[in-house]
Amino acid sequence: MPLSDRVLMGPGPCNPYPEVVEAMTRPMLGHLDPEFLSVLDETCDRLRAVFRTANALTLPISGTGSAGMEAAFVNVVHDGDVVVVGVNGVFGERMCDVAARCGAEIVRVDEEWGRALDPQRLLDAHPSPAVIAVVHAETSTGVRNDIAPLGAGKGDALLLVDCVTSLAGIPVEVDGWGVDVAYAGTQKCLGVPPGLAPLTVSDRARERLVVRPRSWYFDLGLIGEYTGPARKYHHTAPVTAVLGLHAGLGTVLAEGLERSWARHAECGRLVQDGLQKLGFSLVADDDCRLPQLTTAWLPDGVDDAITRRTLLERFGIEVGGGLGVFAGRAWRIGCMGHTARPRNVTLLLGALAEVLAR
Amino acid sequence: MPLSDRVLMGPGPCNPYPEVVEAMTRPMLGHLDPEFLSVLDETCDRLRAVFRTANALTLPISGTGSAGMEAAFVNVVHDGDVVVVGVNGVFGERMCDVAARCGAEIVRVDEEWGRALDPQRLLDAHPSPAVIAVVHAETSTGVRNDIAPLGAGKGDALLLVDCVTSLAGIPVEVDGWGVDVAYAGTQKCLGVPPGLAPLTVSDRARERLVVRPRSWYFDLGLIGEYTGPARKYHHTAPVTAVLGLHAGLGTVLAEGLERSWARHAECGRLVQDGLQKLGFSLVADDDCRLPQLTTAWLPDGVDDAITRRTLLERFGIEVGGGLGVFAGRAWRIGCMGHTARPRNVTLLLGALAEVLAR
Repeated sequence: MPLSDRVLMGPGPCNPYPEVVEAMTRPMLGHLDPEFLSVLDETCDRLRAVFRTANALTLPISGTGSAGMEAAFVNVVHDGDVVVVGVNGVFGERMCDVAARCGAEIVRVDEEWGRALDPQRLLDAHPSPAVIAVVHAETSTGVRNDIAPLGAGKGDALLLVDCVTSLAGIPVEVDGWGVDVAYAGTQKCLGVPPGLAPLTVSDRARERLVVRPRSWYFDLGLIGEYTGPARKYHHTAPVTAVLGLHAGLGTVLAEGLERSWARHAECGRLVQDGLQKLGFSLVADDDCRLPQLTTAWLPDGVDDAITRRTLLERFGIEVGGGLGVFAGRAWRIGCMGHTARPRNVTLLLGALAEVLAR
Repeated sequence: MPLSDRVLMGPGPCNPYPEVVEAMTRPMLGHLDPEFLSVLDETCDRLRAVFRTANALTLPISGTGSAGMEAAFVNVVHDGDVVVVGVNGVFGERMCDVAARCGAEIVRVDEEWGRALDPQRLLDAHPSPAVIAVVHAETSTGVRNDIAPLGAGKGDALLLVDCVTSLAGIPVEVDGWGVDVAYAGTQKCLGVPPGLAPLTVSDRARERLVVRPRSWYFDLGLIGEYTGPARKYHHTAPVTAVLGLHAGLGTVLAEGLERSWARHAECGRLVQDGLQKLGFSLVADDDCRLPQLTTAWLPDGVDDAITRRTLLERFGIEVGGGLGVFAGRAWRIGCMGHTARPRNVTLLLGALAEVLAR
């Protein structure tokens, strides 16, 4: 049976840019082919541009966004290191799990789901942490956590930031904010299929990388010898995915980062205004609400599963269910990457009005 | 500048099957979309068919073949476990590194590169190992190591086998040989781009899986809750890559595994006969030589780098250089997946004859 053509308005993946799909059909190249290596180099340059960084160690990790999280922690956490983690959603929670498996002593700073973390509480949580870790855009709650104050106050600690859902959707300033390690996913605001995790590491963090970390696959010392001038084989790069990322970054940079942020901001406003008119209420406060990913409480009497299924089956529109404490009670509506167009918002709101009127 | 169209006759990636490229252009689906989950289920069924196993825990790991190696070891090696590793090439060597980082006490059984491991030496290496690990098809040397005697004699140990280059190229019988954990890559004889690692785990091994292994990303307990009936979110599946693997496995199974093996065998014979006529000599002995990946000593006076560059630039043909002790002195010529056609062998041998005659 043929597969359906979806409008993807959940928490990711989004619909990829057409240029990305086209690039992924290019004839295969070897992972040591000079032509592929030049595409890879340009991909790393483009990643520096979207991360707003000059970090030499900037590359795509060969796994999904969660692989980026694991690669980040396993390379900077030494056994027994104190890691302060801000937790106001599923992905902050995940950071605690991942970092603990890397040997960290975790100091949690919890905040209610749907509210932003207080940077000062993170800075005050421990006198001398090795790492302060926080999720920039919490995909489970639609909340933006402020990063700049953490960079300003981090002292000797490394600042590690999850940019999976933020990169290219809202401003991310790796160098400007003093972020030491940042990672992202490809299937959110970059408009590329899931499968790679862009990662960047400051020179300061690079000097403290774990030698022979617990993971061979994510060992940045070894991976950097392939992406760097040594060109030493580590693992076979996922060539097709890199060609797609290269094209997606090209599309984002041709539009311009600021225009990409503005487009996501506009679509977010339209989604949020429209949802409220339909009886939804927004989970996150105005001052920390993401545009690209909106978490909204369902109107009274609206059944989560049945309504989502109707949207999917009748209109081919995917929206996301709630995670964790929000399961069954809230939705997560994404408008990211190629999907972030007013046309898709109009479609979603129209379809939703029809379904709710039944 | 447009990218070139290569004939990929190195150690992988191969040229993907046309059906795979087409499948990867399908409109994106969400990773929890019922249509995607049904493709994923069918992909796991098809993996069972090519691995020749009934193992319930059979799935694609979201990373390249080396991620499969790491996922295999990190889930079965408990701290201090004795792991016997057969080492007769780069990938056996890599197993030692990966397993040691998972906390294993390694007992190496070394064999000269280019020769097959003696199964009895592996079985006699330790009285009660937790794991016996071996590479079925050594991509660095072109040697096939025998697996069946290890399954017959393993006793209480788990048998862990790297099938990255063997799967669909030569017979692999996971259940028939008593293999407990096997992993593969997609970019070799399956004819799919690199990016996923098919993995299968016997029920016997499943009972001994590490609870909360060092890696969160490769935690089979958590991943199995997504691929299994619970459908619990772990990480965002690389949807496009799974669609490609699904199509590639469909192509392999429609041809028939036995016919796929026969096609690889025929091409291997043609490559090896032709190379010898051109003055190359084969590294591996007759009785353990792989058809899909041939390692051959260069004729005297032939420059490795210049000759490979000429093949690439004039004919668009990629062959692989030697790894480790073979670097600069031997080539690795692959004929795998969609590339494994007599036409490509004829082209390679013709081009090589021209280049060497200059």
